[in-house]
Amino acid sequence: MEKIKPRTLSGFMELLPAEQTLFDAMMATLKDTYALYGFTPLDTPLIEASEVLLAKGGGETEKQIYRFTKGDADLSLRFDLTVPLARYVAQHAGELTFPFRRYQIGKVYRGERAQRGRFREFYQADIDIIGDEKLDIMNEAEIPSIIYRAFTKLGLSRFRIRVNNRKVLNGFFALLGLTEKAADIMRTIDKLEKIGAAKVKDLLLELGVSEEQADKITAFISVSGDSTSVLTALDAYRGQNELFDLGADELATVIAHMKGFGVPDENFTVDLTIARGLDYYTGTVYETVMLDHPEIGSICSGGRYDNLAEYYTDRKLPGVGISIGLTRLFYVLGEQKMLNRAFPAAPADVIILPMTEDMSPAVSLATSLREQGVRTQLYAEKKKFKAKIGYADKLGIPYVIFLGEDEIANGTVSLKDMSSGQQVSLPIGEVAAYVSSRLTAQKTLTVITE
Amino acid sequence: MEKIKPRTLSGFMELLPAEQTLFDAMMATLKDTYALYGFTPLDTPLIEASEVLLAKGGGETEKQIYRFTKGDADLSLRFDLTVPLARYVAQHAGELTFPFRRYQIGKVYRGERAQRGRFREFYQADIDIIGDEKLDIMNEAEIPSIIYRAFTKLGLSRFRIRVNNRKVLNGFFALLGLTEKAADIMRTIDKLEKIGAAKVKDLLLELGVSEEQADKITAFISVSGDSTSVLTALDAYRGQNELFDLGADELATVIAHMKGFGVPDENFTVDLTIARGLDYYTGTVYETVMLDHPEIGSICSGGRYDNLAEYYTDRKLPGVGISIGLTRLFYVLGEQKMLNRAFPAAPADVIILPMTEDMSPAVSLATSLREQGVRTQLYAEKKKFKAKIGYADKLGIPYVIFLGEDEIANGTVSLKDMSSGQQVSLPIGEVAAYVSSRLTAQKTLTVITE
Repeated sequence: MEKIKPRTLSGFMELLPAEQTLFDAMMATLKDTYALYGFTPLDTPLIEASEVLLAKGGGETEKQIYRFTKGDADLSLRFDLTVPLARYVAQHAGELTFPFRRYQIGKVYRGERAQRGRFREFYQADIDIIGDEKLDIMNEAEIPSIIYRAFTKLGLSRFRIRVNNRKVLNGFFALLGLTEKAADIMRTIDKLEKIGAAKVKDLLLELGVSEEQADKITAFISVSGDSTSVLTALDAYRGQNELFDLGADELATVIAHMKGFGVPDENFTVDLTIARGLDYYTGTVYETVMLDHPEIGSICSGGRYDNLAEYYTDRKLPGVGISIGLTRLFYVLGEQKMLNRAFPAAPADVIILPMTEDMSPAVSLATSLREQGVRTQLYAEKKKFKAKIGYADKLGIPYVIFLGEDEIANGTVSLKDMSSGQQVSLPIGEVAAYVSSRLTAQKTLTVITE
Repeated sequence: MEKIKPRTLSGFMELLPAEQTLFDAMMATLKDTYALYGFTPLDTPLIEASEVLLAKGGGETEKQIYRFTKGDADLSLRFDLTVPLARYVAQHAGELTFPFRRYQIGKVYRGERAQRGRFREFYQADIDIIGDEKLDIMNEAEIPSIIYRAFTKLGLSRFRIRVNNRKVLNGFFALLGLTEKAADIMRTIDKLEKIGAAKVKDLLLELGVSEEQADKITAFISVSGDSTSVLTALDAYRGQNELFDLGADELATVIAHMKGFGVPDENFTVDLTIARGLDYYTGTVYETVMLDHPEIGSICSGGRYDNLAEYYTDRKLPGVGISIGLTRLFYVLGEQKMLNRAFPAAPADVIILPMTEDMSPAVSLATSLREQGVRTQLYAEKKKFKAKIGYADKLGIPYVIFLGEDEIANGTVSLKDMSSGQQVSLPIGEVAAYVSSRLTAQKTLTVITE
């Protein structure tokens, strides 16, 4: 029979078992963290009616959509988790309780040009808090604490959450008389880090901003230092524009509660250059950068918006949310050798190698260990001893149990610690406790190592 | 602005938060069970090259495929998890360790005619053990124990795993001189339960089976009783066909180890009518039925096959696996009122209702509770007291904390148990332990109730 060459599509990540275990551990850590903050899980279809998914229409994204027909239905794969959330909340608004706090971790699809580190199928891990008509600023103060805890739990400490407020920026542009151009200007200053201040100024001038205005803008976005000094610097602009003052108040509130929410000063900064390109952010905006790898860009971004679902409903649904591009993050961590090779990736804690013809004692032992919560494999293949041990070794299973006639007669097992090579004889009843106690240290290991 | 009506596609399940929480708990239980047996997680792309995915070609399934082009690529959404597994193992064989034990829980797509309880997007939860050239019969004995533990952990006890062996059937047909017709005959007797013995006999005669042969077949598949008596009945046919004898030995081995693997007699039966339609099963086959709802059919099926990846590789990869159609199962459980309404579906264990202008004490308390592992919401909206309490009530959050000036001054909180209505005053430092200890009973609740 002619064979079809097995392959995956370009831009589709597929992992080997040990890597997959790390990836899953990363997802589990995020889920646990989100749950700790009272978010509920959500799972929406991957396929939506194109009319619904592309209600907003236009833009770069639409070109990248996986869109197709099935029968007479015009269908599209979701390209993010935000549009399905908007659709979900609008559709089920009457059955939901607001503020609605949900997390969703799922795959999304974008037919981008294939290139290294860019994926066409990738996981996003999103959280959002959606209010009905109103949503208190405290929700915006809480978000960085979730980012902080998530990355800390993953094993990252060298990161910083950058916070800004779009009202501050919009208000500032208004007091310069540049409201009409605010969206364009923000898209421009968002590029500051990538292209530098001089280039930003050039682009501003191209937008029709005057030399004087451009200088004021670059001066403004150059304000830096600790959060207290940035806030103080902002005070100098107060009293000229209502929106600006409101934004400055919001920023002050967010900062005032950061510590209380558990975010240390060193993991947090106010950065007036952060605008997040998307037009729909209206308040606090977030980016998160790895201090030793600024070239990677933001690994967790988001912000406050005023109208999540305007394409589907008249109901005003303001919200705040963040998103982590998990697949890309995992790829980058791998590239940077930051995935913890010591993280337990074996499929079992113990493997039983039966040394007798009769498998019954090994079966009973496997069942007993599993009932005590020990992840156990029973190796049943008729192979040479070396092949059996080689199997355990390749999978990194930490403990191997030899069960021979002597052991069975004595009610013991011979247990080998594969990392130390040490072998002990233990009464059968003590195996589970022995293994479990020795594996507790593993449980403190994190997926990421710095 | 004109609104687009928010909607999901027909045949796509979407759940409200409380239901989603139950669904996720079901998935988590399956993952934990599979992990206990030493299976490693796997995640393959949802989109595959059509040439690869449809290598086997033909059949009903191909018509149901979601197939489309993107650029010049001919793509398809996976319709099960078995074909991607075959592709994965063939592609990565050199990097895998055999026997390869993997689980995968993921969505698959079939454009079936839309009807009640049929889904076009649905979850499958699969486990497979893949050998390299060989795979010991003990793996086939272990599988029912995984089925048993998974459903038991989910809260089901009234189910029965039906086991048969295709070699027994094939051998039996051979000794009747019906080898050529074996596949057709098996597809026919697989329908016994649905259409009855008389109709099966009619269909057998239509296949060109003689009256006498048809009677022997119906007599054979009518053998029933406990597993020991079925095995004894099989002994009467021994010595006429090698394949039959091998199958009878395998069945005897599987049954001999069932109890050792922890499956009680009442959850297990040998059923000679089980053939599983698919041609590729070659040894043990499984079905699982709910005793009180036989009309639902099998909720977990699978079996032994000899050649997983023949379309992709010359390497012989025998295996054994089972699959649960999770979305349909969840739907059916809902219909039968078997989803446990007492199962904790709230997004948080505790919600803090701040009663002062200054939010700082509430923020600190929320942070402290979260650090102690208590899932906590901080309600920050400026609403009337009734609305706040109504929010907690609607979400089913079991404990509400009132934090007013008196409490803050005294270092206490007022904690209300929402189910009893009882309110207690507690020192702040004791809240986490108090709540956690009272929630332990919840943790023994199962998703399914009978």
